[in-house]
Amino acid sequence: MYNFKNDYSEGAHMRILDKLRESNLVQQLGYGEDDYSLEAKAILRQKIANPAAEIYFLSAGTQTNLLVISCLLQSHEAVISAQSGHIYAHEAGAIEATGHRVITAETKDGKLRVADIEQILQNHTLRPHVVKPKLVYISNSTEIGTIYQLSELKALSDCCKLHGLLLFLDGARLGNALTASNNDITLAQISQLTDVFYIGATKNGALLGEAVVFNSPLLYPDFDYALKQKGALLAKGRILGIQFLELFRDNLYFELADHANRMAMKIAEAAEEIGYNFLTRSTTNQVFPILPRRTIDELHKKYLFFEWKSIDKDNSAVRLITSWATPESVVNEFITDLRSLQ
Amino acid sequence: MYNFKNDYSEGAHMRILDKLRESNLVQQLGYGEDDYSLEAKAILRQKIANPAAEIYFLSAGTQTNLLVISCLLQSHEAVISAQSGHIYAHEAGAIEATGHRVITAETKDGKLRVADIEQILQNHTLRPHVVKPKLVYISNSTEIGTIYQLSELKALSDCCKLHGLLLFLDGARLGNALTASNNDITLAQISQLTDVFYIGATKNGALLGEAVVFNSPLLYPDFDYALKQKGALLAKGRILGIQFLELFRDNLYFELADHANRMAMKIAEAAEEIGYNFLTRSTTNQVFPILPRRTIDELHKKYLFFEWKSIDKDNSAVRLITSWATPESVVNEFITDLRSLQ
Amino acid sequence: MYNFKNDYSEGAHMRILDKLRESNLVQQLGYGEDDYSLEAKAILRQKIANPAAEIYFLSAGTQTNLLVISCLLQSHEAVISAQSGHIYAHEAGAIEATGHRVITAETKDGKLRVADIEQILQNHTLRPHVVKPKLVYISNSTEIGTIYQLSELKALSDCCKLHGLLLFLDGARLGNALTASNNDITLAQISQLTDVFYIGATKNGALLGEAVVFNSPLLYPDFDYALKQKGALLAKGRILGIQFLELFRDNLYFELADHANRMAMKIAEAAEEIGYNFLTRSTTNQVFPILPRRTIDELHKKYLFFEWKSIDKDNSAVRLITSWATPESVVNEFITDLRSLQ
Amino acid sequence: MYNFKNDYSEGAHMRILDKLRESNLVQQLGYGEDDYSLEAKAILRQKIANPAAEIYFLSAGTQTNLLVISCLLQSHEAVISAQSGHIYAHEAGAIEATGHRVITAETKDGKLRVADIEQILQNHTLRPHVVKPKLVYISNSTEIGTIYQLSELKALSDCCKLHGLLLFLDGARLGNALTASNNDITLAQISQLTDVFYIGATKNGALLGEAVVFNSPLLYPDFDYALKQKGALLAKGRILGIQFLELFRDNLYFELADHANRMAMKIAEAAEEIGYNFLTRSTTNQVFPILPRRTIDELHKKYLFFEWKSIDKDNSAVRLITSWATPESVVNEFITDLRSLQ
Repeated sequence: MYNFKNDYSEGAHMRILDKLRESNLVQQLGYGEDDYSLEAKAILRQKIANPAAEIYFLSAGTQTNLLVISCLLQSHEAVISAQSGHIYAHEAGAIEATGHRVITAETKDGKLRVADIEQILQNHTLRPHVVKPKLVYISNSTEIGTIYQLSELKALSDCCKLHGLLLFLDGARLGNALTASNNDITLAQISQLTDVFYIGATKNGALLGEAVVFNSPLLYPDFDYALKQKGALLAKGRILGIQFLELFRDNLYFELADHANRMAMKIAEAAEEIGYNFLTRSTTNQVFPILPRRTIDELHKKYLFFEWKSIDKDNSAVRLITSWATPESVVNEFITDLRSLQ
Repeated sequence: MYNFKNDYSEGAHMRILDKLRESNLVQQLGYGEDDYSLEAKAILRQKIANPAAEIYFLSAGTQTNLLVISCLLQSHEAVISAQSGHIYAHEAGAIEATGHRVITAETKDGKLRVADIEQILQNHTLRPHVVKPKLVYISNSTEIGTIYQLSELKALSDCCKLHGLLLFLDGARLGNALTASNNDITLAQISQLTDVFYIGATKNGALLGEAVVFNSPLLYPDFDYALKQKGALLAKGRILGIQFLELFRDNLYFELADHANRMAMKIAEAAEEIGYNFLTRSTTNQVFPILPRRTIDELHKKYLFFEWKSIDKDNSAVRLITSWATPESVVNEFITDLRSLQ
Repeated sequence: MYNFKNDYSEGAHMRILDKLRESNLVQQLGYGEDDYSLEAKAILRQKIANPAAEIYFLSAGTQTNLLVISCLLQSHEAVISAQSGHIYAHEAGAIEATGHRVITAETKDGKLRVADIEQILQNHTLRPHVVKPKLVYISNSTEIGTIYQLSELKALSDCCKLHGLLLFLDGARLGNALTASNNDITLAQISQLTDVFYIGATKNGALLGEAVVFNSPLLYPDFDYALKQKGALLAKGRILGIQFLELFRDNLYFELADHANRMAMKIAEAAEEIGYNFLTRSTTNQVFPILPRRTIDELHKKYLFFEWKSIDKDNSAVRLITSWATPESVVNEFITDLRSLQ
Repeated sequence: MYNFKNDYSEGAHMRILDKLRESNLVQQLGYGEDDYSLEAKAILRQKIANPAAEIYFLSAGTQTNLLVISCLLQSHEAVISAQSGHIYAHEAGAIEATGHRVITAETKDGKLRVADIEQILQNHTLRPHVVKPKLVYISNSTEIGTIYQLSELKALSDCCKLHGLLLFLDGARLGNALTASNNDITLAQISQLTDVFYIGATKNGALLGEAVVFNSPLLYPDFDYALKQKGALLAKGRILGIQFLELFRDNLYFELADHANRMAMKIAEAAEEIGYNFLTRSTTNQVFPILPRRTIDELHKKYLFFEWKSIDKDNSAVRLITSWATPESVVNEFITDLRSLQ
């Protein structure tokens, strides 16, 4: 059985494991002060073209989301998110647990738009009886595989500045977004257009690790305290530093994401050729073809994947996710099987 | 320069790195449902002789402490700890950040005693104007290297049962405690005498990882929700499972701790032979000899370690910590240097 | 200008002011241990026919909602509420600030139904990635003046028991509900069918005061600690006790609510006679007639009230609220004015 | 039995009750926007000689302390307080419940000094492993009746500015402090030397009420949101406005405090004349004479008061508190009884 359920079913890229072994007995300072972490941060500052940025390494996406948001907001301030946003849909109330409401907008494609934000602002004027929207949360790529265009990100950024809102971009799958065929955004532009964002590695070749970037060092200078206090500071911070170092000292991070995208796109193209429709059009590493029930049942004999949404009596949309580690041979086999079932 | 400052200066035991490599491309379920985690938990349940125990793998000690304590307490309930307890002294207010006061007792040796608890209970009777003590936190080994004897642990356990208190044992350095020459406690006894405890691996051969054990499955059945909500649930939980599997499938965990202890004891015995006194008597992997300033200055040319406490104009207690990875050759060299400076 | 904007524009019923004066220099214990509070609680236990109930006096509705909910829920547990529920719509994120998500259902009339709850439960099964619904919050009368029928309350109560949910009834305007012409519920039935509820006095004749009732004394025996810790325990608890004593030693509480309801119904009947429609059908002290813009403008020269919702270019629904203190003469004058403007 | 246990055993000064009655049916806006509150705030701004100050009315001391402190601190920041400070000793962990550690200094007389603060700062430098002290909390008069001199308050204020700390003064008994015979501080000086303080009325003639003053309007402009969110905003804010208006439209507040002080001092002078010692020297409305056990037992037949501390086998310090309502005749009788028992 091959598992297309998610992009964290395997371990790490072998270069990371090699580096862990090679560096293993070199003594280093703890708590993120190791040489590997310092070097990895220096490289990331270059890649985002922002020498003043403050960068921290964390272990997981939910951890990153809750730490950033809880640090940046006062108690009565709230987050604006798409209803499909990870913080609202899949984090067990992590943001509310830090004291903040998540105000959601329904979207067709997982992408938040200026009109959504402005509508929410209009609905929250009865001070002090309602929460105060203060931070906009977006994901790129989104939870359903779509990506923002530069013009869209600029519009959100302008909207936030106009209304005194902070813009926070969840980049758990940022590699997949930036290597999508229709992407027109650079890492440096993300650093310019957002207040905080992060670069996810857990889902792109690392064992664990998210690099959160505060684009202005003045935004929250005490984030180190927060890391420690919320249990997010690893004694052996070296394991995060080593991984980001390997992923970013050359282009590995983007090569891995590109591979995952291409694997998914191969499947999508084959499904389209056969004549299947899609629940949503993704250009990254998750695709949502609508398949006949019989085909789904047959495929399930060899492959694991989620049935995402029932479309009608006979058809359902499924979700297939590929990763940096998905072998092209498996994808080819899946396509062959798909064709044989039409 | 060799670093005796802490026991997390190196990576992981090579068997762990080997297993990470070997298992790397085996697809596994995420979020702790992988085969390695399940097998590691089964082994741990055997080692603690408690088949009903609920076990969870976390990433760090502060994370474990704050999650366990915040789950087990109501808002007005408080923790009792030694003043030197990690949760009070070195976790940036992590427990208070979850809403609970840490009530402390001064101790000579880092060990909490029944009399300390009873005094605190007597001082907290003016309901509802004071907090309600509800959980006793102890560390074994303690933050200054001492360990509890079985009779002491039993007395604490009885005291807690008598007063309706929960007993939580921080085992960040549990391996060092259980392999100390004067230890008379087993893992199974810890499971019987406490409500919750954890087995630390970060400081004993792993890259990261603490295994928290709820000795009764009824104590907090929803801990999985808490893990997710507080950002402690790793997508690739396999990396925790693999490490505990390697450490506990045979006796590796205890061998590593025993090594660290023996290295520290060698230093302690040499210091004693020379005629130095100690700030506190430890039998685990941290020792606190009182050395002349001149000797300290000379040693600092080759070795990193903390000056712990000034004793008088001419002498200070220092702290030397050894680890699973400390080479005996370095210890021998250190002893030679120490002798030559007397 | 007469103000129909809310039901807390005046002070307290004169009997309360008289009793405050009469008792003023009688020394009493503080923090709710005064004789008046004790007697008032005894009377309330009789009125609800539940001698075992635990009763506490608080100062305000938001305070009561956040204290009850935060005490009864674990961190990962969530509240189910109508979208128009006070805790979601008008309390500045008070519940989220205690760490809990409020999951909402859209309703036509402000009333939550079993189907709403079951749909929400179905959407929250992906443990541990989603919050766990645990408490159902309803208001009676609702925020838009409607009331629950006994059959509806029983159905909700059964649904909660079936699914292990707690049922909490916000009674900020409970007097208005229980004296509505179509009410078929008694205080005793509310005590039997809910886990916790409160009896609001701020909006029904008191200066301030809400009496929260835990129907089982085992539900949260430490609520006194919570009151103190969250700043809700008044040193001079006597002022709450005295007010509830006056309102409940005979039938005053219900007489005042009945007056408010009758005043609103007079307005509603007049509006209906004229031929106006209503946004929603209320039987309590708030009514929502849909009036022509020109009529609204004219009425605004003499009366304050909220324009609630624009219906079309020429008409808007307005909200008119009456209170225990609304003079019938003012209501008659308003009706005369309304008729003259048709 | 006459009760000397506290200063909140009675209701309110009759002028307040009269004004409640007189204003009772005047319709007013809710939530603190009433004319009485606005006028009372204008008067208070004059009395403190700070026209820019932001003033809010709250219901209770614990509520005020937790709201001010939680608004002004980031999660990892801590409060410095005397160990006898109300926030540490008698508020059920209210500050910790908002996420912050209270770091305490032992003091002889309840007064915090610059040396205490500087010692604490020195002990909290191991960033990010320890909390960050950020706010200094003092009470005037203190919890044991002592008061700060102007020179002491200035020194604390300078120390706070030097170290970037905020200074917050709990004035639950500020009237008693400012009318003490040895007081040399004015309300205007308190406004200049602190960042936030409050003027307590619950213990000085009101039914309930504390007026918190933010001396700079920039310090926390969103405090209205916090009031609402934490359940501290009363619908009928008029009852707080009316009380402060009555207490401060002339000199009533200070006259009442002066009366309470004089009653306590009469007792203290009598005890001193008889030859009794004192646990601590207070100049306000609480006194701590050390009396023989036999005398205490006899007095307890007619008077309620706390035995504060056992001194030796035969003697204990007691606490006697007087209030704005304590009749001089009762004080005279108590003194007569005390003399007769010597």
